[in-house]
Amino acid sequence: MNAADILDLARMRGVMIATAESCTGGLIIGRLTDVPGSSRAVDRGFVTYSNAAKIEMLGIRPETLDAYGAVSEEIAAEMASGALKRSQAGIAVAVTGIAGPGGSDHKPEGRVCFGLADAWGIRTKTVDFGAIGRAEVRLATVDHALELLAAALRKD
Amino acid sequence: MNAADILDLARMRGVMIATAESCTGGLIIGRLTDVPGSSRAVDRGFVTYSNAAKIEMLGIRPETLDAYGAVSEEIAAEMASGALKRSQAGIAVAVTGIAGPGGSDHKPEGRVCFGLADAWGIRTKTVDFGAIGRAEVRLATVDHALELLAAALRKD
Repeated sequence: MNAADILDLARMRGVMIATAESCTGGLIIGRLTDVPGSSRAVDRGFVTYSNAAKIEMLGIRPETLDAYGAVSEEIAAEMASGALKRSQAGIAVAVTGIAGPGGSDHKPEGRVCFGLADAWGIRTKTVDFGAIGRAEVRLATVDHALELLAAALRKD
Repeated sequence: MNAADILDLARMRGVMIATAESCTGGLIIGRLTDVPGSSRAVDRGFVTYSNAAKIEMLGIRPETLDAYGAVSEEIAAEMASGALKRSQAGIAVAVTGIAGPGGSDHKPEGRVCFGLADAWGIRTKTVDFGAIGRAEVRLATVDHALELLAAALRKD
């Protein structure tokens, strides 16, 4: 689903959108705001590239970072939840992953954890895009995040 | 100057970079984080699309918004200053503008105000890119913001 359709869905639902982005570095909200008039449905984005940013901007718990690492569903959940709490948005999507090149922290290149928070609660998932290249992982992550937003906004 | 060279300059200077973005919606930090290893020089990004986001995330004063409007050098200055204060970064660039289509608030389409904050203080400027199209205004704004970062980082 393209960004314009997602914004239409959000407007129909009467919710604003927030993003919390690590590996995509702002490209998800960048895509959403490509659309003219997006200010009616986009509230804000937290680009928490460093761990300090995750803690300070989104209230991520250092203990969760220590226990699971930055690329984990536990952190994706806290990022999505933090973005929802610290915004005017009614739905928030979060991503944290390893765009590469190279894996880290015993996790493979191309692994991305997603979090989605709205009135229904928080859901997470992990996708291994593989070592397809940094730009490609980031692009695939943006597309997948938009699909998660669309699915959540279509939910009855 | 390309993003990789800017990150090298920042590392040589020993400073991290933060962005505060309105009309570009995350594309400046998105460009910076295209570069592998960018986590060594990129701290965080504040994508403050709504006025509420500007106030809550960056400490923009509502009185400044009322007096000058969101697209003003006064707001660009407060955004850059707020991003510097509320991060681990040593340099912050801020943009607020009218990507279009259409002008607003008695300001023309394509007008973008820039703010740059670092240890030297805060500088602002306005560029009228004209009604060249939403995508083109956003792209030109990203390029110009990177030039401002580069110029500031090269300063003795």
